[in-house]
Amino acid sequence: MFASDNTAPAHPAILAALTQANEGIAPSYGADTWTARAEALLREAFETDCAVLLVPTGTAANALALAALTPPWGAVITHRIAHIVVDEGGAPEFYTGGAKLLLVDGPSAKITPAALDAEAARYSRAVVHGAQPFAVSISQVTESGAVYAPAEIAALAGVCRARGLKLHMDGARFANALEAARCTPAEMSWKAGVDVLSFGATKNGALAAEAIVCFGGAGAEVMPHLRKRAGHLFSKHRYLAAQIAGYLEGGLWRDLARHANAKAAQLAGVLRDAGAETIHPVDANMIFARLAPAQAGALRAAGAAFHPSAVDGAGAYRFVCSWATTDAEIARAAQALSAA
Amino acid sequence: MFASDNTAPAHPAILAALTQANEGIAPSYGADTWTARAEALLREAFETDCAVLLVPTGTAANALALAALTPPWGAVITHRIAHIVVDEGGAPEFYTGGAKLLLVDGPSAKITPAALDAEAARYSRAVVHGAQPFAVSISQVTESGAVYAPAEIAALAGVCRARGLKLHMDGARFANALEAARCTPAEMSWKAGVDVLSFGATKNGALAAEAIVCFGGAGAEVMPHLRKRAGHLFSKHRYLAAQIAGYLEGGLWRDLARHANAKAAQLAGVLRDAGAETIHPVDANMIFARLAPAQAGALRAAGAAFHPSAVDGAGAYRFVCSWATTDAEIARAAQALSAA
Amino acid sequence: MFASDNTAPAHPAILAALTQANEGIAPSYGADTWTARAEALLREAFETDCAVLLVPTGTAANALALAALTPPWGAVITHRIAHIVVDEGGAPEFYTGGAKLLLVDGPSAKITPAALDAEAARYSRAVVHGAQPFAVSISQVTESGAVYAPAEIAALAGVCRARGLKLHMDGARFANALEAARCTPAEMSWKAGVDVLSFGATKNGALAAEAIVCFGGAGAEVMPHLRKRAGHLFSKHRYLAAQIAGYLEGGLWRDLARHANAKAAQLAGVLRDAGAETIHPVDANMIFARLAPAQAGALRAAGAAFHPSAVDGAGAYRFVCSWATTDAEIARAAQALSAA
Amino acid sequence: MFASDNTAPAHPAILAALTQANEGIAPSYGADTWTARAEALLREAFETDCAVLLVPTGTAANALALAALTPPWGAVITHRIAHIVVDEGGAPEFYTGGAKLLLVDGPSAKITPAALDAEAARYSRAVVHGAQPFAVSISQVTESGAVYAPAEIAALAGVCRARGLKLHMDGARFANALEAARCTPAEMSWKAGVDVLSFGATKNGALAAEAIVCFGGAGAEVMPHLRKRAGHLFSKHRYLAAQIAGYLEGGLWRDLARHANAKAAQLAGVLRDAGAETIHPVDANMIFARLAPAQAGALRAAGAAFHPSAVDGAGAYRFVCSWATTDAEIARAAQALSAA
Repeated sequence: MFASDNTAPAHPAILAALTQANEGIAPSYGADTWTARAEALLREAFETDCAVLLVPTGTAANALALAALTPPWGAVITHRIAHIVVDEGGAPEFYTGGAKLLLVDGPSAKITPAALDAEAARYSRAVVHGAQPFAVSISQVTESGAVYAPAEIAALAGVCRARGLKLHMDGARFANALEAARCTPAEMSWKAGVDVLSFGATKNGALAAEAIVCFGGAGAEVMPHLRKRAGHLFSKHRYLAAQIAGYLEGGLWRDLARHANAKAAQLAGVLRDAGAETIHPVDANMIFARLAPAQAGALRAAGAAFHPSAVDGAGAYRFVCSWATTDAEIARAAQALSAA
Repeated sequence: MFASDNTAPAHPAILAALTQANEGIAPSYGADTWTARAEALLREAFETDCAVLLVPTGTAANALALAALTPPWGAVITHRIAHIVVDEGGAPEFYTGGAKLLLVDGPSAKITPAALDAEAARYSRAVVHGAQPFAVSISQVTESGAVYAPAEIAALAGVCRARGLKLHMDGARFANALEAARCTPAEMSWKAGVDVLSFGATKNGALAAEAIVCFGGAGAEVMPHLRKRAGHLFSKHRYLAAQIAGYLEGGLWRDLARHANAKAAQLAGVLRDAGAETIHPVDANMIFARLAPAQAGALRAAGAAFHPSAVDGAGAYRFVCSWATTDAEIARAAQALSAA
Repeated sequence: MFASDNTAPAHPAILAALTQANEGIAPSYGADTWTARAEALLREAFETDCAVLLVPTGTAANALALAALTPPWGAVITHRIAHIVVDEGGAPEFYTGGAKLLLVDGPSAKITPAALDAEAARYSRAVVHGAQPFAVSISQVTESGAVYAPAEIAALAGVCRARGLKLHMDGARFANALEAARCTPAEMSWKAGVDVLSFGATKNGALAAEAIVCFGGAGAEVMPHLRKRAGHLFSKHRYLAAQIAGYLEGGLWRDLARHANAKAAQLAGVLRDAGAETIHPVDANMIFARLAPAQAGALRAAGAAFHPSAVDGAGAYRFVCSWATTDAEIARAAQALSAA
Repeated sequence: MFASDNTAPAHPAILAALTQANEGIAPSYGADTWTARAEALLREAFETDCAVLLVPTGTAANALALAALTPPWGAVITHRIAHIVVDEGGAPEFYTGGAKLLLVDGPSAKITPAALDAEAARYSRAVVHGAQPFAVSISQVTESGAVYAPAEIAALAGVCRARGLKLHMDGARFANALEAARCTPAEMSWKAGVDVLSFGATKNGALAAEAIVCFGGAGAEVMPHLRKRAGHLFSKHRYLAAQIAGYLEGGLWRDLARHANAKAAQLAGVLRDAGAETIHPVDANMIFARLAPAQAGALRAAGAAFHPSAVDGAGAYRFVCSWATTDAEIARAAQALSAA
């Protein structure tokens, strides 16, 4: 418990959707009705005629998105601790054909418009020796657990437009961010200036399914080729599509995220009550907190699992809640801490 | 019906295995017990301590295997109509970093030892201008429906060893080939000299799951890095593993393949009875047959779907049977042809 | 003698131009006056406002040109024995990021419009599984010594336009082709529909200098970035430029090519007089001839060097004349053959 | 004057060597006697049986070296302002196939053993999500004008050995460093633990020639293939070789570097006399100094050219002396400054 939202199982309703899709013959490679349904649900959720591609992992979604927006000789500006930088084994470099990731800093893993503009200003298409930025990538929720408000995204998008850059959002925890920001999917994406979104479902209840959502046609012509070439076009495509459809159907995705966020807020309270400092804003379903060794030990003894934060100094740990986090788990953590 | 084995649904037992895996928290990225179980079953089936990596598609399996065996400046010798050449959108070139595919001909999409040796003999590591072969890739079942006997594979492997080449087998239909050749998995792979096998499950009853099996350590050190970098390392890895475990458990995989092969033999009989010529040996679950336009039309009207063969001239079509092909479907085809 | 036009030295006038450029300080990376002069001479020769990039080798010119015209997931249609296929160590695959070379056949290494059209017709942008052609590459002079007439190029360009493909010409021996076809540079390039030309100088008297010439802006925006990234942007750029300027100045390039072609015609006569069959049209400065072993031995004993043809069967050899080939060398060959 | 050592012409003796090589027919692609001579001179200079590859640019040398030491999924640790990071248009990423550059800081663009070790310690071959370092690259002279002493290199090499990393030296100004450190080429390279050296000649008097020198066989098997594939194998190879031979012959290279260093020391004195602060150690032929706007203006008016330093704050400029820098130029600068 608490190690990651990807240690949770799939939500029964999503598995049920998968099971329902397992009937009879279906055209392969996405020409089936489940795929049409998943795409329709995404377009409805985003209130626009976006292009959609389904893939099984967030790394694939991010790398394909960046490769569609950036030539091999280009560069992507992103935060120093972004998932695409530190946790994807070089997938962005692989998919783009060797584009550079240009790193900027910012509090709680957020990029600020000023930092973005300063970094972009260092390069020029006329100077071939230096980097050639084409895109910006932000994580929503950030790797430190913070959420960009729509206005913050719009400010970054403004810099992007002024500098001729496309804006990618790694929305591995898009649903959690949405619940935190209490806005519509459109407001958090294309209305704020996002060109391509990696829309995550896996961490929030799917088995292995993510959608790349292209707004205004960005990357949409190239991406089907890139996906096929990467081995990410499923032959039995209905099984990806059924997950996404089941995830969106009836607003399940938002319910699950709301639960995860609520549990994180509870857990943060428990940690703070025990005297632990929370390091970043607990905007969504992740908590970063500094614990005494005895506290960490007591939690672990009570069955909690959690990783040290890579960037917040000694004694700082990350806790993640998911759709499957229970009150009992929170209670067990509280009990362990009060005993410590 | 008959369009492809990837239009079939997943076998219920495999979906059941998936459902059973959907219990509680599990370590991510392959550290779970289902993964250990899938690997153990593969090692048992192959009677050797092979390295195993699970991925969701055959294209990913093939491209990763070739990338582990061939440097970017290397080349892979394969058949002119191999799946990796004509149907993977350039995935081998992408994953290898631009290695060349060197194409040879051979009957029923099989490579002969003589053709392989002649092609390999055209190049030399000392002549940097020309291609630099590092690997050979064969398809089992071939794209024309033929099956390599173990002795045929061993003969190719002999050329490979003499020429310093590694041998990859695209076993998208490995189970069907095994049933055709009536030999053990070991006899059709490492005992015959195969270094890396793409072990297919998707076409034979899984949802989306393939195993890369490395014998004698070939590629095993590099491949985990390549898989991660390609976005093919699943976070909720248990769902890939459960499919493979369910596929192997109790010999289900061989039962399903036996069924598909038997249905293909039946359908071939039906076609021949109607006067259609079968073009290649019907070794496994694919049939290539030349039909009169009226016959093709009648079959289509009866609900059959089938693609023209790309290489066998006008009027030649491919029919594929799967684990889900029914006697009723065969009967319907027979009826349509006799009425035509 | 006769082994290749790249075993010849540089022409003294080109070395003199280099020496003249070696005066004082000059801006680096192409901002010097010699570069401006070379570009102006090329624009004058081609009678159009083409974009120009200088590089030291033909392989670099070809690979950069193709990379500017083809995305990593694209393909280039070319002749089976084109230099870019068999003699560039995979440079086109490297520079394009893994694009495929699709091979067609044709007499004397020429692509015919029908063969080109048939190959292009096999693929569709809508079918992501198959290859995605973006460009066609032809060699002028071909690898078998033949020259495309402007009308032949225009016919190929017509197919390219109809199929949405760009046309690249590997003009490693462009000057020799021009002298053979007795037309203007414009007629042999952009007026016939060539989009990007690799304009060779090295084989015809330079030390190491080639120009990539982009017509109608094709690839011109991308190529400076690709060249820099490939390490082909010279810091002391004047030394590339001086070669090209010296090569073009006063029509030296055409004089040198005329000489080479004339010597090849003479040598072909000598070979034919000795009973040797010339296999392909001797359009420019290369001869392919079938020799008796005694003839080959006698020529070698007289100091001639020549390679077997890779594609014309046993006893077939290639002879190349250059700007530096002398009457004495031809006479020595004649003498050796008549003694044999 | 002072803008860069690559704005200087070639040294007459090197041009003379080129001219002498321009005699008669010579085997292509490096099988000529000038190449043998250049290699022999390098082996003599380095007192070891190193493998040698000649290329025309430093970017090509560096990128090829790194690609030979690092797989596409690997990483190279280097200084944040290294030439390979900021000035090569992404060539290292291109040649390696997308490897990451991991950046560390250090005074005067030097990497310290502690910083290197700390960075290397962040990654593990067992954690596929993160970067996978394979090599370290240091610049000699550094981008801030400092020189690593042999003992400093040996300390870095010690960390490399302990961490399983190869050590590359970008020796674009190797000769200048050597004159600064007053040691032998061997002491500054393989005896200190360098695996592959980019041995620069262009900036120190050649036209366009650099040698990749591989010690202990590092990268030597792979590099000829990488060089060919990158279009950097010259057909008329003698013209690269003659430059390197002329450069080394009679110790010319060290004389030229000694001159450049001496002029830089003089110019540094002039700048300091004028009250300008020199920012980094003036170890070799580069000076970084902070100037008042009036001083900068006066120097420019007197014909001096110099670039702002990208990393040393406002008013900081880089001055470079070369083999061709004259006393008159220094005097002119002094005069301009005293008048300012």
